[in-house]
Amino acid sequence: MKTYAIEKNILKHLGFMMILIVFAVNLSCKNNNEMDADAQQYSTSITDRRDIARVEPLNWWVGFKNPKLQLLVQHPDISERTVEINYQGVSIDKVHKADSPNYLFIDLDISEDTHAGKFNIIFKKEDDQDLLYTFELKPRQKPSEDYVGFNSSDAIYLITPDRFSNGNPDNDIVESLNEKTIDRNDNYARHGGDIQGITKHLDYIEDLGFTAIWPCPLLTNDMPQGSYHGYAMTNFYEIDPRYGKLEEYLELSDSMSKKGMKLIMDQVANHCGLEHWWMKDLPFKDWINHQAHFEKNAHNSDGYRSITTNHRRTTNQDIYASNIDKKSMTEGWFVSAMPDLNQRNPFMAQYTIQNSIWWIETANLGGIRQDTYPYPDKNFMSRWAGEIMNEYPNFSIVGEEWTSNPLLIAYWQQGNPNKDGYNSNLKSPMDFAMQEKVVKGLSEEEDWGSGLIEIYRALANDFAYVKPQDLMVFPDNHDMSRIYTQLKGDITNTKMALSYILTLPRIPQIYYGTEILMNDFDKPGDHGLIRTDFPGGWDGDEVNAFTGEGLTEDQKDMQSYLKKVLNYRKTSQAIHQGKTIHFAPEDGVYVLFRIHEDETVIHIINKNDKPFELDLTRFAEIGLKGKAVTNIISNHQFFWGDNITLEDKGSVILTTKLN
Amino acid sequence: MKTYAIEKNILKHLGFMMILIVFAVNLSCKNNNEMDADAQQYSTSITDRRDIARVEPLNWWVGFKNPKLQLLVQHPDISERTVEINYQGVSIDKVHKADSPNYLFIDLDISEDTHAGKFNIIFKKEDDQDLLYTFELKPRQKPSEDYVGFNSSDAIYLITPDRFSNGNPDNDIVESLNEKTIDRNDNYARHGGDIQGITKHLDYIEDLGFTAIWPCPLLTNDMPQGSYHGYAMTNFYEIDPRYGKLEEYLELSDSMSKKGMKLIMDQVANHCGLEHWWMKDLPFKDWINHQAHFEKNAHNSDGYRSITTNHRRTTNQDIYASNIDKKSMTEGWFVSAMPDLNQRNPFMAQYTIQNSIWWIETANLGGIRQDTYPYPDKNFMSRWAGEIMNEYPNFSIVGEEWTSNPLLIAYWQQGNPNKDGYNSNLKSPMDFAMQEKVVKGLSEEEDWGSGLIEIYRALANDFAYVKPQDLMVFPDNHDMSRIYTQLKGDITNTKMALSYILTLPRIPQIYYGTEILMNDFDKPGDHGLIRTDFPGGWDGDEVNAFTGEGLTEDQKDMQSYLKKVLNYRKTSQAIHQGKTIHFAPEDGVYVLFRIHEDETVIHIINKNDKPFELDLTRFAEIGLKGKAVTNIISNHQFFWGDNITLEDKGSVILTTKLN
Repeated sequence: MKTYAIEKNILKHLGFMMILIVFAVNLSCKNNNEMDADAQQYSTSITDRRDIARVEPLNWWVGFKNPKLQLLVQHPDISERTVEINYQGVSIDKVHKADSPNYLFIDLDISEDTHAGKFNIIFKKEDDQDLLYTFELKPRQKPSEDYVGFNSSDAIYLITPDRFSNGNPDNDIVESLNEKTIDRNDNYARHGGDIQGITKHLDYIEDLGFTAIWPCPLLTNDMPQGSYHGYAMTNFYEIDPRYGKLEEYLELSDSMSKKGMKLIMDQVANHCGLEHWWMKDLPFKDWINHQAHFEKNAHNSDGYRSITTNHRRTTNQDIYASNIDKKSMTEGWFVSAMPDLNQRNPFMAQYTIQNSIWWIETANLGGIRQDTYPYPDKNFMSRWAGEIMNEYPNFSIVGEEWTSNPLLIAYWQQGNPNKDGYNSNLKSPMDFAMQEKVVKGLSEEEDWGSGLIEIYRALANDFAYVKPQDLMVFPDNHDMSRIYTQLKGDITNTKMALSYILTLPRIPQIYYGTEILMNDFDKPGDHGLIRTDFPGGWDGDEVNAFTGEGLTEDQKDMQSYLKKVLNYRKTSQAIHQGKTIHFAPEDGVYVLFRIHEDETVIHIINKNDKPFELDLTRFAEIGLKGKAVTNIISNHQFFWGDNITLEDKGSVILTTKLN
Repeated sequence: MKTYAIEKNILKHLGFMMILIVFAVNLSCKNNNEMDADAQQYSTSITDRRDIARVEPLNWWVGFKNPKLQLLVQHPDISERTVEINYQGVSIDKVHKADSPNYLFIDLDISEDTHAGKFNIIFKKEDDQDLLYTFELKPRQKPSEDYVGFNSSDAIYLITPDRFSNGNPDNDIVESLNEKTIDRNDNYARHGGDIQGITKHLDYIEDLGFTAIWPCPLLTNDMPQGSYHGYAMTNFYEIDPRYGKLEEYLELSDSMSKKGMKLIMDQVANHCGLEHWWMKDLPFKDWINHQAHFEKNAHNSDGYRSITTNHRRTTNQDIYASNIDKKSMTEGWFVSAMPDLNQRNPFMAQYTIQNSIWWIETANLGGIRQDTYPYPDKNFMSRWAGEIMNEYPNFSIVGEEWTSNPLLIAYWQQGNPNKDGYNSNLKSPMDFAMQEKVVKGLSEEEDWGSGLIEIYRALANDFAYVKPQDLMVFPDNHDMSRIYTQLKGDITNTKMALSYILTLPRIPQIYYGTEILMNDFDKPGDHGLIRTDFPGGWDGDEVNAFTGEGLTEDQKDMQSYLKKVLNYRKTSQAIHQGKTIHFAPEDGVYVLFRIHEDETVIHIINKNDKPFELDLTRFAEIGLKGKAVTNIISNHQFFWGDNITLEDKGSVILTTKLN
């Protein structure tokens, strides 16, 4: 990834050479036959021209399965010009005008034998000078198959970048951006966390036992306020300068890659921020939904009922849903500061797909987390995921459908036999249903129909999923009260929730700070509070969770506990891909087995406050009798017999492996 | 059906003739060739011999698709005998001995061209007299296709027969049965209701607008106590004498049939009562589950944990369920007084299937309600339903799976694309999920995520069902607190629940007494109390709901309300088979449309206490503007415009039909 940075440095010092080369290019354009012959030469010698305000994607690659590429070109009155490209293997299929005169969309075909290199796109107008834009087709860094996405062998650390660690205080305030303040006392202001902060603490995250990181969006959110969360993107091709430069993002990716860790990018296909650059001059009348209304009432649309979505996500599946409700759901804005992108505009659709592929290829991603999954046009989403998975067959996408209804979770997973024929192409829906039931089951009094049975029944629903082990599960996330708060400050219950989630046939995700009992007791559910600064992430923090300095005993204990469970999980084939068998809770005890070859992991949740003798003969079918098992927390070892005494309330994780 | 009664009367007066004919039959048995020729003759002239204690089914029919029939024969030391049948078209495939010497199972093949008639089954033993049993193959009353089961055009009245009406006080106490007392002050004793009680009040039920009746089981429950509910059957081929004779059951069926009403029989494949006749001498060692234990601890098995089922019904689907849990679920007894029948014993399986077919054909049934559907072996249940539906392609079976989880409801419906390949062959699972959400949605405070939205979302789940209109829905049933009690005595809410349920694309079932606000406030959920006597069902009752005498104004109003809704529903194609469109609740108002050709039914639930102006322009896509609509309760007519004022809280049902 470093080659990119070097190229950019060189370019800075080649100002005068560019002028010469551009001249040469202009001359050569006069004869197409000559051009073809010369093309290969330019590809190594050409110097960038940027006569055009904006061309996106910023570059592309040779060697994709899909030979098509559509360029968005933005420049004053660019629609008055014709377009030429003279590069072997690259041809223009079609040039589309938009509704605005300041856009062109150029359909390119990049034939299979095209070589990587640079070429100029020439924009011509009679009686006017040609405008040139140097576009690069890069060679691919590795084969498509090697982009391996997160899976059930991973454990994902979710980070709100503004709140994790301030690795570079120099970028805290960027004068060119709308929101300039930084105030750690304001939960909804920027706090200064950044990409370097993550990179700096990769060892900590790795030591904890995580193998993947999902930072909330890092792209520019040039909004006047509340931009710290990252979901109101104003430029889909730019890292927010307050988080760092593209180079820093690539460095993070590179460092992670060297550790065998996967970087997951948080993307948003549904909406952008109201300050997105294109909002001042939209390419098409239907580039965003409710555009007509927006144009009349920009920045003042809160009171208008129909402009925001009804959030009735079931209209995506509901065979009885009214058209107006479906329309409101899909076309309504998520909130009034986030214009709803219209993916039924084919240029918008193409733009979004290419943007995702651009980031995968540029940043060597190990997965995408797609925001607000049921809000864009669902047929587009199927195409979006399908085109990505077509290019990267081993990649992973997790989609956010916030529902506790397993019917909906199942519906969104790739290959589900949906009665309407819909196939999402989405590998990993989120398992909000399991999250809810884990909390409910641990919180409720034990009874025949309440308590642990809720969790058992939630897992029993797996029969309905095409591939339950591809669902992402989590104790909480950045939009939810923290698990420690949801479980009312009960550490034992919190440990049970975490160890259970980490033992399931799922892809687990843990939110940063869970390991030190971060909470939102003061105002449960408050988004700003949920996303509290990670102690030690800022120079001068009194408490430092990275070093352990100033942590309470409870915090240290939880950190150590999670570390043990995660590090066991890291190499546990039984947890990654083992067979699952569980036994209906009885007497406040729920036992789950994960089995792969000679490794059996036994997860016991015990809710009894007093010592409880567990009859092991009930589990005879697992075949453990006489085998040595080790407690992965205490390292205590014993032989599986007819019974064991569970001394304390809490979870017990045993394995046959650590012998 | 009257021919049966006549035959029985004739038989009483033909004592001496029987002796002569039996003599003749014995003689003729000596020569098989002669027999074949004579068979047709016997079929019209034979007189019944009953040398054998028990042969089941009691008779059979010619003309079924399936030519096979298996007879259960019970008689002391019957296994020492060989069996002969000499009747054209009927051949013995195999005679099976059981574990008990007192049983034989005879596999018959009834060829396509067999004529209806009687023949003797001859049980032979060397040096002993032949034993004869006269068996009848009846002609079928109507083609298989004409057995049309209940469907979404029906509304079903559910009755607990002991508690509806005592039509014949003479059968209140039957000296030959274990439970002899009758005590209307004891909610768990017999009260004397019977079949004649139902037949007597058919006009009432029909006038209310019901088109089908499901009486709880009417078969003999010769249990020492609590037998009034009917689910502990001790003879699968006998109407409980306290309810009446078979003839009375057939008369009920006949009367209903003349009114175009359907009789649904409540059957139980999972278990029998502990006093079932076969419990004293079980045919096979595995005729029931936990038989070994039962034999040791009969009548005293409550304390034994494993003999009763764990009731963990999800083990039927759960891909992670332990074997021991699955076994406990399927093989465990429902309660300790109900031995669990082992349908994996092929003779038991055949017995149960034939028993169901026998009742359909004998009583001209319009449907079966199968109890405790997920408790028997599920592969057997698929075969059971499959064989019935194979014989009666237009028949209907509704199965009780008490779950509020739509995944499980969907799983049990015929044709669902279950990932384990299971096909239940069950047309109508019960929709407990909708029941729960209707109560929840009406009870909850209205908010963005609570109240009516619960009901809307419950209906939105229909996308997951193969055929939602085949699900049976209900406000309550005989095992549940009554809807008026569940809704805390709120009459308006009760009306909303009822009208909504009766407008859905479903098969609705209403429990007797709902129309007069019967309740269980004194002890909510108490089974005996739920099944309170219907006032007027007993001579001398002070209140008579059939005539209206003594009813409160509220009761009369509800009776009239339900009558209007049901009678509208009776001929409403829009409700029976119409397209459904609903609009997400807003401002405490939820609107559902059912549309068929020029009939549109509009169901509005309005939770506002104060007059509310409903903007009708939101429903423009329905195309009602300018059309006349009539309120089916008040008959008020108006033209559909831009808005209407909903004056009162409650449901409004409008139609375009009554103009």
